[in-house]
Amino acid sequence: EAPASVPLAAVELCSKKPPKGTFIQKADAAQEIGLMVRDLRAVDPSFRSQAAAILPRQSGIIIHLAHVRVIVLADRVLAFDPTNPAVEYFLPKLQRRLDAPSHPMPFEFRAIEAVLVEVVSTFNARIGTLIPSLDLVLDTLSTTQDFGGDTVQNCMDRLLPLENALNEFGAKVAQTRAALNEVLVSDEDMSLMYISTFKETGIRRRIDQHDEVEMMLENYMKQIDTVHSEVTSALQAVKATENATQIRLDAMRNRVLRLDIFLNLGAVSVGVGGLVAGVFGMNLLSGIEEDPAAFWIVSGISFLTSIMFFRGILAFLRMRRIFY
Amino acid sequence: EAPASVPLAAVELCSKKPPKGTFIQKADAAQEIGLMVRDLRAVDPSFRSQAAAILPRQSGIIIHLAHVRVIVLADRVLAFDPTNPAVEYFLPKLQRRLDAPSHPMPFEFRAIEAVLVEVVSTFNARIGTLIPSLDLVLDTLSTTQDFGGDTVQNCMDRLLPLENALNEFGAKVAQTRAALNEVLVSDEDMSLMYISTFKETGIRRRIDQHDEVEMMLENYMKQIDTVHSEVTSALQAVKATENATQIRLDAMRNRVLRLDIFLNLGAVSVGVGGLVAGVFGMNLLSGIEEDPAAFWIVSGISFLTSIMFFRGILAFLRMRRIFY
Amino acid sequence: EAPASVPLAAVELCSKKPPKGTFIQKADAAQEIGLMVRDLRAVDPSFRSQAAAILPRQSGIIIHLAHVRVIVLADRVLAFDPTNPAVEYFLPKLQRRLDAPSHPMPFEFRAIEAVLVEVVSTFNARIGTLIPSLDLVLDTLSTTQDFGGDTVQNCMDRLLPLENALNEFGAKVAQTRAALNEVLVSDEDMSLMYISTFKETGIRRRIDQHDEVEMMLENYMKQIDTVHSEVTSALQAVKATENATQIRLDAMRNRVLRLDIFLNLGAVSVGVGGLVAGVFGMNLLSGIEEDPAAFWIVSGISFLTSIMFFRGILAFLRMRRIFY
Amino acid sequence: EAPASVPLAAVELCSKKPPKGTFIQKADAAQEIGLMVRDLRAVDPSFRSQAAAILPRQSGIIIHLAHVRVIVLADRVLAFDPTNPAVEYFLPKLQRRLDAPSHPMPFEFRAIEAVLVEVVSTFNARIGTLIPSLDLVLDTLSTTQDFGGDTVQNCMDRLLPLENALNEFGAKVAQTRAALNEVLVSDEDMSLMYISTFKETGIRRRIDQHDEVEMMLENYMKQIDTVHSEVTSALQAVKATENATQIRLDAMRNRVLRLDIFLNLGAVSVGVGGLVAGVFGMNLLSGIEEDPAAFWIVSGISFLTSIMFFRGILAFLRMRRIFY
Amino acid sequence: EAPASVPLAAVELCSKKPPKGTFIQKADAAQEIGLMVRDLRAVDPSFRSQAAAILPRQSGIIIHLAHVRVIVLADRVLAFDPTNPAVEYFLPKLQRRLDAPSHPMPFEFRAIEAVLVEVVSTFNARIGTLIPSLDLVLDTLSTTQDFGGDTVQNCMDRLLPLENALNEFGAKVAQTRAALNEVLVSDEDMSLMYISTFKETGIRRRIDQHDEVEMMLENYMKQIDTVHSEVTSALQAVKATENATQIRLDAMRNRVLRLDIFLNLGAVSVGVGGLVAGVFGMNLLSGIEEDPAAFWIVSGISFLTSIMFFRGILAFLRMRRIFY
Repeated sequence: EAPASVPLAAVELCSKKPPKGTFIQKADAAQEIGLMVRDLRAVDPSFRSQAAAILPRQSGIIIHLAHVRVIVLADRVLAFDPTNPAVEYFLPKLQRRLDAPSHPMPFEFRAIEAVLVEVVSTFNARIGTLIPSLDLVLDTLSTTQDFGGDTVQNCMDRLLPLENALNEFGAKVAQTRAALNEVLVSDEDMSLMYISTFKETGIRRRIDQHDEVEMMLENYMKQIDTVHSEVTSALQAVKATENATQIRLDAMRNRVLRLDIFLNLGAVSVGVGGLVAGVFGMNLLSGIEEDPAAFWIVSGISFLTSIMFFRGILAFLRMRRIFY
Repeated sequence: EAPASVPLAAVELCSKKPPKGTFIQKADAAQEIGLMVRDLRAVDPSFRSQAAAILPRQSGIIIHLAHVRVIVLADRVLAFDPTNPAVEYFLPKLQRRLDAPSHPMPFEFRAIEAVLVEVVSTFNARIGTLIPSLDLVLDTLSTTQDFGGDTVQNCMDRLLPLENALNEFGAKVAQTRAALNEVLVSDEDMSLMYISTFKETGIRRRIDQHDEVEMMLENYMKQIDTVHSEVTSALQAVKATENATQIRLDAMRNRVLRLDIFLNLGAVSVGVGGLVAGVFGMNLLSGIEEDPAAFWIVSGISFLTSIMFFRGILAFLRMRRIFY
Repeated sequence: EAPASVPLAAVELCSKKPPKGTFIQKADAAQEIGLMVRDLRAVDPSFRSQAAAILPRQSGIIIHLAHVRVIVLADRVLAFDPTNPAVEYFLPKLQRRLDAPSHPMPFEFRAIEAVLVEVVSTFNARIGTLIPSLDLVLDTLSTTQDFGGDTVQNCMDRLLPLENALNEFGAKVAQTRAALNEVLVSDEDMSLMYISTFKETGIRRRIDQHDEVEMMLENYMKQIDTVHSEVTSALQAVKATENATQIRLDAMRNRVLRLDIFLNLGAVSVGVGGLVAGVFGMNLLSGIEEDPAAFWIVSGISFLTSIMFFRGILAFLRMRRIFY
Repeated sequence: EAPASVPLAAVELCSKKPPKGTFIQKADAAQEIGLMVRDLRAVDPSFRSQAAAILPRQSGIIIHLAHVRVIVLADRVLAFDPTNPAVEYFLPKLQRRLDAPSHPMPFEFRAIEAVLVEVVSTFNARIGTLIPSLDLVLDTLSTTQDFGGDTVQNCMDRLLPLENALNEFGAKVAQTRAALNEVLVSDEDMSLMYISTFKETGIRRRIDQHDEVEMMLENYMKQIDTVHSEVTSALQAVKATENATQIRLDAMRNRVLRLDIFLNLGAVSVGVGGLVAGVFGMNLLSGIEEDPAAFWIVSGISFLTSIMFFRGILAFLRMRRIFY
Repeated sequence: EAPASVPLAAVELCSKKPPKGTFIQKADAAQEIGLMVRDLRAVDPSFRSQAAAILPRQSGIIIHLAHVRVIVLADRVLAFDPTNPAVEYFLPKLQRRLDAPSHPMPFEFRAIEAVLVEVVSTFNARIGTLIPSLDLVLDTLSTTQDFGGDTVQNCMDRLLPLENALNEFGAKVAQTRAALNEVLVSDEDMSLMYISTFKETGIRRRIDQHDEVEMMLENYMKQIDTVHSEVTSALQAVKATENATQIRLDAMRNRVLRLDIFLNLGAVSVGVGGLVAGVFGMNLLSGIEEDPAAFWIVSGISFLTSIMFFRGILAFLRMRRIFY
């Protein structure tokens, strides 16, 4: 566990008051809000790879979803990591929602909904940049005929980082989904989330009364599901296209190899014809040196041998079905 | 969240009344029907990629399955996205079912069943076009012997879009299935769906009395399961055929390469014979220039060298089991 | 939904009475037995791809498992699709079980057990034909050394349909398993299945009294599990063998390519030797035309050049570890 | 269902009495022990592929795990398939445990623990032979540089049966795990297992009192989990090594093909040089026949052409980045 | 089961007392702490591959997570395998936590938290060494253009052990996660863990009062989840990079093969030109021996034939789209 001594920078937001920067000592905050020091790790931005979490506690709800790290209390919200540009951009939107005059839901749910809206719109923005780039690469890859050139190479160079980004993003979405689901399956957690009711009346909500929060969470979970299924679809398309590309590269290679066979057969045939010419080029007595027709006859034989050899072997291969 | 100010085009259908076009303000509708504005996103056609959902609420059931986006109320149905041709085609069928005089089930279930029948038949139509095209490609791919030609290439060009379409369709079916299942596992949701009973008597259905709706939903879920398992089977067949094709392409390539070895061995052999002839073609004194038999002997040696070399190397390779 | 007007052919079986052919109007039957028309789709043979289902209803149990489509009532069984040879073959066996004089279980469970026995034995028969054929192909594929010949090709041609059949069969078994499991997890469904008790006494079975039927279903589910795990094992073996074959084809190809390198190196070497001979074959004055030893020296140089070139390049490649 | 007429060979073991061979008629045994004939199939060795099962019944527990097929009763154990060497080897160990004088657990749990100990040690023995052989093959495969020789071929020939054996063994372990788990999730089944308490007192154990048996089963399940995760790890290592081998074979092939290009380029270059020499070998008047320097000049040109052609094409290919 | 006679080395730690080395007889310890001998296997270091486990028992909690094997009692901790360097390093940290004066939680939870902190930090350290090495290899592999050289080979040689280590580590993390989860899903187990309360007051905690321990376990489980999802991401990246590498190797091979075709076509063309020259090299009368222009004409024809043949075949192949 990291030492709790470095204070965390935070911004405190209330309804209809300007936000106020502050520094929070983990130990003090824990005591004040009534939670364990370790619970605060979820909102400590120095734990970069911390999983998404929604932790309803006695008098506050600790939320870490995507870049948003907040503690929602009955009448104020502590937002952490305020120097992160994404967070800076989010805070005014959060403030606006907290100020909404006639909103039917209590303070804490207005805050949570603001967080969920932010998370979903961040996810949608991310998928809105990833998917089109991916589609472009996959389209090129699945229509190119240029299997010996640079296209496939280029596509793969661009596909791999996209695929990795998509995998990572999918894991993040799944984590967020899991954090939401964990709350949704626990009646206890959901009734615990009515912290303003508890603060005002001093009575805990009955464990089966949490319809508003359940419907709200369900609604955003469905939207996250939509994002998740788009990521899954995209990854399936990557897989399918990669498989198809491999088979098409293989088929193309077979086609090229067949051609190679023709050329090699041509080379042997020419060699055989050359051998015929070669033996008559020897400085030995063939006995037909003086025959004026011999040149043309033997030349013809030489060329014909080449051609006959080529066609003969080819016919043989085809007949034996070794080659077709 | 999108601004709620653009009214949604909708059609209102009652039993035995002509359908009536209307425009609905999200905020007004939410208030009137007693649901949150965000619930209406499920039926807003501008959210194209929204996941399938069945949301039973206080006095209405929000349904978005495939192209159907409706809110079922106790005595009328609001159908959204009415300019979509698939919806236009569906509305008369829905009206007929709502008008059915002697149907034993209450209004809201007649509407829901109409939606489910529509969804299932849409799915069946889609699978009825996808599977035969796919089978055709897979059959060609798994029987072709033409591994160096265009057939594999062509098949892959047609297979990839089909596979992607199938993956997407499968995801859609799975989403629909999940939406149905979500209702089926919640006794509360299912009793909530008896909205006409509630409207007439003012009493909520007991939470364990929902046999009719449960059986109805189960029945259509089974049909969607059937579709889903057909999609899964088809994708397995694609996978199996792709694997087999890859292995067959590989085997074919090995066969072609073996042939290549023969030809290359032939080329070397002819070269060796040519070398013999070549040295006697040099303008140097071999001392047998005048021997009349020499030509035939050396020619014979040249050809024999070629043939012996070829057979010798081949026998050697076979003996050493490097080649067989 | 198909029009309910075409009557379904069926056979009615009672205990100790001869079976009786009959035609059933869906609507009439639904009314008489007390179920919805749509429930009858499970036993309508015109819905070929309908998933397996066991649907306990008020006064009858609708069963569709494999080729068996029956409605079990308190004192008789309606068997559908009677012209299907598999069904024709099953009916006498069902009748015998219904007639069993001293069987301790009530009528409806005797009928259900007969169906389950039939399904399990059908599955076992199917797997008994599939697995041996598959094993034969896999054995051939995993032991053949003939990677350039027809064996792999032939094996793949026979493997693909077997794999597809196995996938389909596995899906069917999984569906049947799911249908059984769905009943097994619902105490309500299982007590509902005591239809003869209800008919005789007019009282519903208590929801937690269903030991006999639970044990019976569990027992057959275990047997179906066995079949399912055999299918899974077989598919794993297919996957493993395909992977191994691909690697072995690749290894064989590398071996062939290494040989190719030797031959190509041979071809170049012979060409270099031929070049030496060729320059002395030019009609130009080398100045050693008259030297009687020159022929032998230059011939020797020519041949030696070939051999030295071959060995030199080979040694160089090996030293640089480009080739080994 | 097989006819119940063939008696099953069995051995009856009691505490502190010598084991006694016996033959059991399925029907008689079923009646005596109070179970259905079909329950006995789990212990009938003629059903070879029967899945693992633990079936707690009225007055006995039917167990089939790995090679052990026993019925545990309140004061004796019936062990089936006694001629199987593995069973013969197990029976004395079982007897010793039944005889243990001061063991705190009742008779039936001593018997069950003996079975579980046997199963776990059998599994451990099996994994102790499979994993080392596998590791040997995988190590060879992942370190060999000999991609054109026999090593890969040999490794694959040994890997495939090992992989299949591991898959089968994993399925068996998973089945055993499932059988244990099925009992562990059912409070009812676990309290049913206190058969001696029932026999002595005539009262059923309360459904939530089964701590000892639960802890015992959990403990052995954890050990089976360990085995299962070792199998899974081994299969992952196989998969990873196969993938890596395929990529390394591919990389090696590319390296060999690059070499091939060099050699082919060499062959063409030598051919071009030979062509130069060839035209001067023609019996035609070049006009420089008598020039004494011509031989050396043209020879030089011929060789230089070869070398220049080789280097020129290579430089061109490198410049165009077609080859590097 | 191993004989219980070899005593286990252990260290006993209390709050504010120096640790004390001791040897524990399994049988004695079991009796004293009130658990079965077999429960002690989880902390016996001679069972190396034993799965992770948290076993709450009557008066002690047996914990085996990663290298930590302890029994937590109401007022002391028995730590096993004390000669293991990792354990030696851990014990002082454990002691410090046990000594913490003002910690709000009872002794046993301070001990458990110390174990969990240790496990999580061990996991984080491990992943902190594995992931960077892996990223280095994957980066090299996905950016190299050197597909015929040593880079891919080298990368694969380093990737395979990393992948295997990651798989093993992932399995270990998953096991640890499962052990934590098993406790978290059992209200009974969690209330059983308040062993000091029980020791002091003699009353068991009510089964639904375990908020502190639940939150503590959940918190560490989330951190283990984070580790697990990092491992999963890394393995996905390995898979994606391997796939991409295979496709890039294939594409590169096609490019090389295309080049091969050019060279082979060149070889045949040169051969054809050589054949022309060859026939005029024959010692036969062509009738143009004396024509002074013939040499240049025929030489030109020979070279032109080569070039025309090359371009002609190439154009033909391109026209027929066999090659492009």
